[in-house]
Amino acid sequence: MSLKNKLIKVVVVEPLGEINLGSIARLCMNFGVNELRLVSPRCNHTSTEAKKMAAHGKMFLENAPIFPNLLEAIKDCSRVIATCGRIDHGEIPLHSSENALKWFLSSPSNNPIAIIFGREDRGLSNLELQMAQKVITLSTSKIYPSLNLSHAAAIILHQLMEYAEMPHSSYQEKISNPAYPKEFNDFIEDAKELLLEIGFLHKHTAQARMTKIKKLLHKAEVSSEEISLIRGIVRQMRWFSKTKKN
Amino acid sequence: MSLKNKLIKVVVVEPLGEINLGSIARLCMNFGVNELRLVSPRCNHTSTEAKKMAAHGKMFLENAPIFPNLLEAIKDCSRVIATCGRIDHGEIPLHSSENALKWFLSSPSNNPIAIIFGREDRGLSNLELQMAQKVITLSTSKIYPSLNLSHAAAIILHQLMEYAEMPHSSYQEKISNPAYPKEFNDFIEDAKELLLEIGFLHKHTAQARMTKIKKLLHKAEVSSEEISLIRGIVRQMRWFSKTKKN
Repeated sequence: MSLKNKLIKVVVVEPLGEINLGSIARLCMNFGVNELRLVSPRCNHTSTEAKKMAAHGKMFLENAPIFPNLLEAIKDCSRVIATCGRIDHGEIPLHSSENALKWFLSSPSNNPIAIIFGREDRGLSNLELQMAQKVITLSTSKIYPSLNLSHAAAIILHQLMEYAEMPHSSYQEKISNPAYPKEFNDFIEDAKELLLEIGFLHKHTAQARMTKIKKLLHKAEVSSEEISLIRGIVRQMRWFSKTKKN
Repeated sequence: MSLKNKLIKVVVVEPLGEINLGSIARLCMNFGVNELRLVSPRCNHTSTEAKKMAAHGKMFLENAPIFPNLLEAIKDCSRVIATCGRIDHGEIPLHSSENALKWFLSSPSNNPIAIIFGREDRGLSNLELQMAQKVITLSTSKIYPSLNLSHAAAIILHQLMEYAEMPHSSYQEKISNPAYPKEFNDFIEDAKELLLEIGFLHKHTAQARMTKIKKLLHKAEVSSEEISLIRGIVRQMRWFSKTKKN
């Protein structure tokens, strides 16, 4: 494996700090990232301070596409990893970064793949974490686990490079065609509507129950074909339930 | 292994940037470091900016002891690792960070051990690198390998925590009592004087030849006892050569 043929997108959601963003742009250059993508930045990503911190990576700031929400930023990406520093991630399973990053790198070349970093002040929401197929967290001291955003990015991008340079990857690819996050999300929306319609879900409990369903599907490493299949079932059921009412 | 009983000293040589120093102080808190030590800082390490970046790690800045040179800063440390970002490290062998850090962690508890980081603008000199028993470098893109100082620190301290948390270390300790850097250095000075005195070395070639000797000794993972032994030989020879002259 090598990072050369990988189209790695680093996605930062609502960044607050120009120093952090500039530092991440430098890291993109240090570790062969393909593109920096920003979701609704809360600072000026092309400020003098940001560019100074970016050093030779400032073109990542200048060329960064901006997206209105996370799903738009990752919709062309076949494999997506999110990073989580919070402890209250609920039922979302955390993967070891080794397994998750090797899975990430075993993606076919020329498919865009993304790593998502959250806000400095409150990370990624559980709904955002669930848009990724795998969520990772980093080992830190329990006394003060809160890493600076760009330090978390440095650690993960360096790990990615180390795994990419390993002569023989021990990672055995289990699935050939995992579902895209956008497909996955569209299916979940369809399924939720259905489950509300049929009274399996109530508005106030919907999110908690859908979290369990997402967890199950991610654990299964659900493929595009499987998503199509169960989405077909859901659609059929929605059609059926509507016809029945009339 | 655990980091709990390890007295890890992070040594920064002549730091220039307050943002970098503050960031490193935060990392010390994130990763259970025991003390931050500074060698002749070129900035104000307790400035408002440094403390702001340090967040909950600011006591590392406030309590940082200052040393006039690197050897003073590491003289109580039994195992010392230096980090090298430069390509022109000459004959100094580079270790994989995995091997070096596992060796580092297998040090007996309650012995101070140190990781050295160099200047932002020109790293550590070859002479400084040779004060450490092992030198490591990090994988980066060949196009732009220069990492920000605090990012290098983040990557290495995180690796250290990961290896410390591994349930069973596969590292087999080969030596029980490696020579302290100060002992090693004193011996090298003695030996150089001798070799100059006996005409084996000339002033203009002394450094290059001593580098080869240091390399040999580090490769052998020389112990305190061995250093005492060969230092005894050197002293004896110096006494002999002086007596002969008179």
